[in-house]
Amino acid sequence: MKENVEEILNKVREEKPLVHHITNWVTIYDCANIVKVLGASPVMAHAKEEVEDMTSIASALVLNIGTLTEDLVIAMKLAAKCANKKGIPVILDVCGAGSTKFRDKICLEILKDVTINIVKGNASEIARIAGEDVLTKGVDSIALEKNMSKVAKGLAKDRKCIVVITGQEDIVTDGNEIVLVRNGHPIMENFVGSGCMATSVIATFAAVERDLLAAAAAGLACYEIAAEIAANTCQGPGSFKERLFDTIYSLDSKTVNKMKRIEE
Amino acid sequence: MKENVEEILNKVREEKPLVHHITNWVTIYDCANIVKVLGASPVMAHAKEEVEDMTSIASALVLNIGTLTEDLVIAMKLAAKCANKKGIPVILDVCGAGSTKFRDKICLEILKDVTINIVKGNASEIARIAGEDVLTKGVDSIALEKNMSKVAKGLAKDRKCIVVITGQEDIVTDGNEIVLVRNGHPIMENFVGSGCMATSVIATFAAVERDLLAAAAAGLACYEIAAEIAANTCQGPGSFKERLFDTIYSLDSKTVNKMKRIEE
Amino acid sequence: MKENVEEILNKVREEKPLVHHITNWVTIYDCANIVKVLGASPVMAHAKEEVEDMTSIASALVLNIGTLTEDLVIAMKLAAKCANKKGIPVILDVCGAGSTKFRDKICLEILKDVTINIVKGNASEIARIAGEDVLTKGVDSIALEKNMSKVAKGLAKDRKCIVVITGQEDIVTDGNEIVLVRNGHPIMENFVGSGCMATSVIATFAAVERDLLAAAAAGLACYEIAAEIAANTCQGPGSFKERLFDTIYSLDSKTVNKMKRIEE
Repeated sequence: MKENVEEILNKVREEKPLVHHITNWVTIYDCANIVKVLGASPVMAHAKEEVEDMTSIASALVLNIGTLTEDLVIAMKLAAKCANKKGIPVILDVCGAGSTKFRDKICLEILKDVTINIVKGNASEIARIAGEDVLTKGVDSIALEKNMSKVAKGLAKDRKCIVVITGQEDIVTDGNEIVLVRNGHPIMENFVGSGCMATSVIATFAAVERDLLAAAAAGLACYEIAAEIAANTCQGPGSFKERLFDTIYSLDSKTVNKMKRIEE
Repeated sequence: MKENVEEILNKVREEKPLVHHITNWVTIYDCANIVKVLGASPVMAHAKEEVEDMTSIASALVLNIGTLTEDLVIAMKLAAKCANKKGIPVILDVCGAGSTKFRDKICLEILKDVTINIVKGNASEIARIAGEDVLTKGVDSIALEKNMSKVAKGLAKDRKCIVVITGQEDIVTDGNEIVLVRNGHPIMENFVGSGCMATSVIATFAAVERDLLAAAAAGLACYEIAAEIAANTCQGPGSFKERLFDTIYSLDSKTVNKMKRIEE
Repeated sequence: MKENVEEILNKVREEKPLVHHITNWVTIYDCANIVKVLGASPVMAHAKEEVEDMTSIASALVLNIGTLTEDLVIAMKLAAKCANKKGIPVILDVCGAGSTKFRDKICLEILKDVTINIVKGNASEIARIAGEDVLTKGVDSIALEKNMSKVAKGLAKDRKCIVVITGQEDIVTDGNEIVLVRNGHPIMENFVGSGCMATSVIATFAAVERDLLAAAAAGLACYEIAAEIAANTCQGPGSFKERLFDTIYSLDSKTVNKMKRIEE
């Protein structure tokens, strides 16, 4: 897998896939923009009247429950069912799971009603979806004394999907194999949207690569390599984000090859 | 027309018009901010209970269907009818037309039910609204083998409005006269919100200038001149956007006069 | 009070409170991010099914009516009642009050139905809520020939709450004592979101300090000191905002102590 990180990035830029999002109102711009600066086409649409049409012409579907309402849940299920039928990968960001009963309920309902190909969250969000009795602090993870690789593997097996836990070290697993992505920078914890953008990047890579374990790991590696570079040229978390967009836009294969820290 | 680009920009700064938007959730901030840095007052309000009151105190109304729902359509029609009655110019951004049947239907419905003074989109969006059988890639235009000046003219005549097609070369027409705006920079294709902000700029210029053909062309010229300057001082599409806001804020008449590339 | 500005800032960073927002779609990202760069945890959630759960785990609640709809009003009241019961401070930003009858009505309804601990707005917004016959220009204040300290004091007494009026000189009052915050920079009037972010900062300070008069004044002072620093290192209102985030993130007690201009 390590070998084809650059290859998948190049495919994103050549194929310029359309990535359909039904997402939250906080980071909606940044999710769209990270896809755009990667060289692909984001689209955001959540009306129940059009989500199926939009998903039909897309190559990946992002569901992010960050600012969930019942209307969005209906739209998410319609879009996901359409994606399932057409073989389009669906990524669910369980943003804020563990903070309210409603979020937990909706996540489990979505996982039951449609096929989710990749479930992504931070440690406490994923632990909650895996059935652990943990509390998320809004959308920020709490420190957990758990073996998160085991939690991720268990959830992946149960749900027959890829599970991604982002953190200092990202865990990506299909329930059997575990891939660790060790790129990234602590400043990513100091602004809003880091996790949501990671999900959109993963979706963009999944749009062009059928091996979703490889796609998720490659997406995270590229995103976090860019973050490492941006962190060195910024003056704080505000300018960091702008530099991150700049850096991803011009990220080249040679840099990715040199900087990637992936453990299989 | 070429002569009064600077004049209209100055009028924006003197009169500081209020520009009411009913717009999408992706670029809503950037649309507001581009109006603000121009020296005018943006306001975003979409509750059916207040859109008429808000439009009544505004000098232009933007309708942008980027993340359309039925509720927004109701609000858009209420606001537009109020604007029509009061003689306030209404600008419709047909964002994503051609990507789903719902978007096409709503655009045509709006165009039938209320008076739209300026219709704005990219090539495939406008082609679709003009009745051509084209597909938009989400909100990104596809390459078209069409004479877009002719398409724009036809739509402008049919709908008795100004039509604006943004692209490498912008087309502005009232159905008879064609104005081409040749300013701009390729980097504008590499971040999210460029087209939506162009619409908000046009609306701001239309708020102070009754000749809407001149207002649209002048707005585009100023916006894209700022983009050319920003492109030369940025490090990529992330920092470009911040520099664009900086540049528009301090854009002066002399620079506009020297750099404008408008062909009538 | 002057003495403990730095102390409250330090408490924010140590306690990292969760600040729940039900806010508008324009500045939602910036409101979240300003809380995050202060070192605290923002969360945005507006579904009626979860707002009470989310407020329950938070240390402050922000209600901002910038893009109000009936659904949001229901969610705001549910959340505020929960906050009232648990003793969590509630901050209401009367964003755009005075521009439409609907906004005025909803503000007064909220003030009647739940306990608001801090009411915050610009001069014409607060004047309107205090019963004056003034018109707000969208969300921008108009110039008023009024003694705003008196207006603020009157409203604070009537509503038994803290009242904050932002402007060149901020007024903070509990109806008896008046505190003036004289920090800030004119560039804050030239981009969108300055006022909304001020509210989120006040809420974050109120989350860790029971003396809400001190919390509001300290929050404003820190925010505006950062603005003064950012203004000196930016190239316009676009880059200003990024620098503002950078500056708040690294704002230290010594700088705050040296630069604060608070008059009691």
